[in-house]
Amino acid sequence: MAEKGVTPRGEDYSKWYTDVVQKTELADYSPVKGCMVIRPYGYSLWENIQAALDRRFKETGHVNAYFPLLIPMSFLKREAEHVEGFAPELAVVTHGGGKELDEPLVVRPTSETIIGHMYSEWVKSYRDLPILINQWGNVVRWEMRTRLFLRTTEFLWQEGHTAHATREEAEEETQRMLGVYADFAINEAAIPVVQGRKSDREKFAGAVASYTIEAMMGNGWALQSGTSHFLGQNFARVFDIKFLNQKNEFAYAWTTSWGLSTRMVGAIIMAHGDDQGLMLPPRLAPTQVVVVPIWRKDAERGVVLALAEQVTATLGAAGVRVKLDSRDEFNAGYKFNDWEMRGVPLRIEIGPRDVEQNAVVFARRDILGKEGKTFGVPVAGIADAVRDMLVTIQAGMLARATEFRDANTHTVASYDEFRQVLEGPGGFIRVHWAGTSEDEDRIKEETKATVRCYPFERPEGEGVCFYTGQRTDRIAIFARAY
Amino acid sequence: MAEKGVTPRGEDYSKWYTDVVQKTELADYSPVKGCMVIRPYGYSLWENIQAALDRRFKETGHVNAYFPLLIPMSFLKREAEHVEGFAPELAVVTHGGGKELDEPLVVRPTSETIIGHMYSEWVKSYRDLPILINQWGNVVRWEMRTRLFLRTTEFLWQEGHTAHATREEAEEETQRMLGVYADFAINEAAIPVVQGRKSDREKFAGAVASYTIEAMMGNGWALQSGTSHFLGQNFARVFDIKFLNQKNEFAYAWTTSWGLSTRMVGAIIMAHGDDQGLMLPPRLAPTQVVVVPIWRKDAERGVVLALAEQVTATLGAAGVRVKLDSRDEFNAGYKFNDWEMRGVPLRIEIGPRDVEQNAVVFARRDILGKEGKTFGVPVAGIADAVRDMLVTIQAGMLARATEFRDANTHTVASYDEFRQVLEGPGGFIRVHWAGTSEDEDRIKEETKATVRCYPFERPEGEGVCFYTGQRTDRIAIFARAY
Repeated sequence: MAEKGVTPRGEDYSKWYTDVVQKTELADYSPVKGCMVIRPYGYSLWENIQAALDRRFKETGHVNAYFPLLIPMSFLKREAEHVEGFAPELAVVTHGGGKELDEPLVVRPTSETIIGHMYSEWVKSYRDLPILINQWGNVVRWEMRTRLFLRTTEFLWQEGHTAHATREEAEEETQRMLGVYADFAINEAAIPVVQGRKSDREKFAGAVASYTIEAMMGNGWALQSGTSHFLGQNFARVFDIKFLNQKNEFAYAWTTSWGLSTRMVGAIIMAHGDDQGLMLPPRLAPTQVVVVPIWRKDAERGVVLALAEQVTATLGAAGVRVKLDSRDEFNAGYKFNDWEMRGVPLRIEIGPRDVEQNAVVFARRDILGKEGKTFGVPVAGIADAVRDMLVTIQAGMLARATEFRDANTHTVASYDEFRQVLEGPGGFIRVHWAGTSEDEDRIKEETKATVRCYPFERPEGEGVCFYTGQRTDRIAIFARAY
Repeated sequence: MAEKGVTPRGEDYSKWYTDVVQKTELADYSPVKGCMVIRPYGYSLWENIQAALDRRFKETGHVNAYFPLLIPMSFLKREAEHVEGFAPELAVVTHGGGKELDEPLVVRPTSETIIGHMYSEWVKSYRDLPILINQWGNVVRWEMRTRLFLRTTEFLWQEGHTAHATREEAEEETQRMLGVYADFAINEAAIPVVQGRKSDREKFAGAVASYTIEAMMGNGWALQSGTSHFLGQNFARVFDIKFLNQKNEFAYAWTTSWGLSTRMVGAIIMAHGDDQGLMLPPRLAPTQVVVVPIWRKDAERGVVLALAEQVTATLGAAGVRVKLDSRDEFNAGYKFNDWEMRGVPLRIEIGPRDVEQNAVVFARRDILGKEGKTFGVPVAGIADAVRDMLVTIQAGMLARATEFRDANTHTVASYDEFRQVLEGPGGFIRVHWAGTSEDEDRIKEETKATVRCYPFERPEGEGVCFYTGQRTDRIAIFARAY
């Protein structure tokens, strides 16, 4: 129950985030270091994210499967960069069934290796390709500093793993799935992500190239929200995913992998939340509409509740995710605050005067106060009116997040200016960039900002690197990041 | 590809089972001892099982959530019976992030303990009850002898965990969820399970009482296919799930847990499969209908394919899970065998003569050969005809499985007769039973048969125990079991 609201963002953004997660009952800390419990409200949001992604995966020809949680340690060691990247984060099972194991098993941090092994058994001929498999599951990465949803020792995600006969097909797949993530983020989560390529410093351990969707959070920081990797033949060579091509010659397959996790819940919280709390995009919100009946005298209770129940039933039958808040122990003002904190996109208020007019009041979560209210919405046709309003709210949230992103994206001409932006307003810094990985390291050390991506869209053309002074057509987005 | 069919059941039932699982590509062995890979066809079946169960869970007021995979070893030790039951099967994480852990973590074999801990934090007052949570996830139990789907070191399942203010409510919940499992098994999987109570010897480690749905496999063995446990206050006491009741007194909650796993896939295989291979109930089949175009001359190909595509599109638009098999490299006979092996409930054959009549042929998987064919089904209204036929097949499969179960359920008057049944025809043995747990142990040792359950339905009334000679009104079903 919402006894008190959340800490204002301006006071302590980090505390605001934790308050939102805990007070709205999205998740809770667990007694296991770095692991969280995803509570029903948070899990329901995750289920909606899953459904929206899974539909897109299937529409693009993918199928789901399931591979073992435990992976022999030796598998990870086969790809040199891969094990170097993941070794420090491994959870290791050394005992099973009361005995010490001959070979330790790691709890999967990601599944390229075990899946690569299976693909080598399934792929014999070009006819067996492509393999387009996705897996929904849990992974474990031992993290030192954790944060609910954003970085937890165990997290839920999906990992797609595909194998192709040609380099071109695999590269196309990598881009296709990045596009699926971007489409999901923009059109379901209302987050205007930037698509681009990761710098070598930031790419996936074992990949040839990594691509990302980067989202801007309410404090101007970036959040990497989904990644798609072109793995070349790196994993195919070490796991021997070999096939007879149409010329009857042996060739190694080309593979990709792509993943999106419960981190996306953190992205949604921080892209849209305000000082009232959570603000959920209608397409993903577990509850899209809450109906709050309002009465003062006992005599009013019956008629108000009757209409509230009728409206709730009508909306439920129309496929709207609706809840009636008929709790007697709380007054209307308390309920308004409570549902606003929980981010329900649309509130329907019904009082005695509304009953007389056979109408209701709409109150938008994204525009608080009188400005966001529509009075006298007729009960006849309520389902259509609600659907239209949810579409309007979804579009409004995307528009606002886009404006915010653009207003907080800066260009700079020098490293001095770069530092001033980071110390001042913050946000994304979009620059011409000709630096090296070592330059990136130095900038990170000095400013904590990293290259988030080399964006695909770069209307700027050629220009001068703010750091090296060299001419280049490469654009980079720098930012502080979670 | 189905180069060869499966081993006949009469020749080697166990080999038949493994053949079916592997040749239909439901699952494959993995390089990790005791763990399997669930391939897309098997996973798709599991997704349909999940959807059918999840719908029922939500209709009965449950919500989903997610708790940590890793559980501190000390948690398991708190409930004495629980740790005794699970200790031999634990996988233990001793190292994380490159260091030895202060306290080892076990990979969850089941989640009563960690969930009990969280409930103790969430429950303060009777107003916080009941908690009705389900979790979809993976668990690990170190098994010595594994078998694809039936017993694997890691498996997928759902585990429901509820907490209630009163004993009565918790007992009701335990029965309600057993009923949900039975309803699912009978009406979705077409398996006529027997509902009953587990003997003390067979109950869940830490439960007051365990209930089960028991299914009969094609070889007469039993398969425990879902269980629901009344945990009393056992876990509430050790995890301190305490609340202020309406009289303002502290009381311990009453809890339940219930689970159903990927084992159900094994149940479906063995309850319905025949010497052709898999036979899937239409309501759960990943592919409900396969359309096979048939032609000899190239001139026929175009018209036949056109009608086949039209029928496929019509059925797809009507929500039927349909596949068109237009592969050129295989002839119709090969395709018939292939899809029969894969258990697709209904095949639609379309040849040149069918095109002339604007009609198709239905061929049922559950009735092979001419007897199961319907000729001249008009293309107009094909979707309704298919839907009706799928309902007929579903009902036919349940009826056949019920007949089989009843024909293979025996009553015996003496232990001698009991042994003769087990050595001869096999199946369920339904008897009056007044024996002790020690008697059960002895019978198991001598015959390998165990008490599968004390069935709820027992029209027999009082009688004489076949083993002890005592009068009793308790009925037990004995059988060999997986």
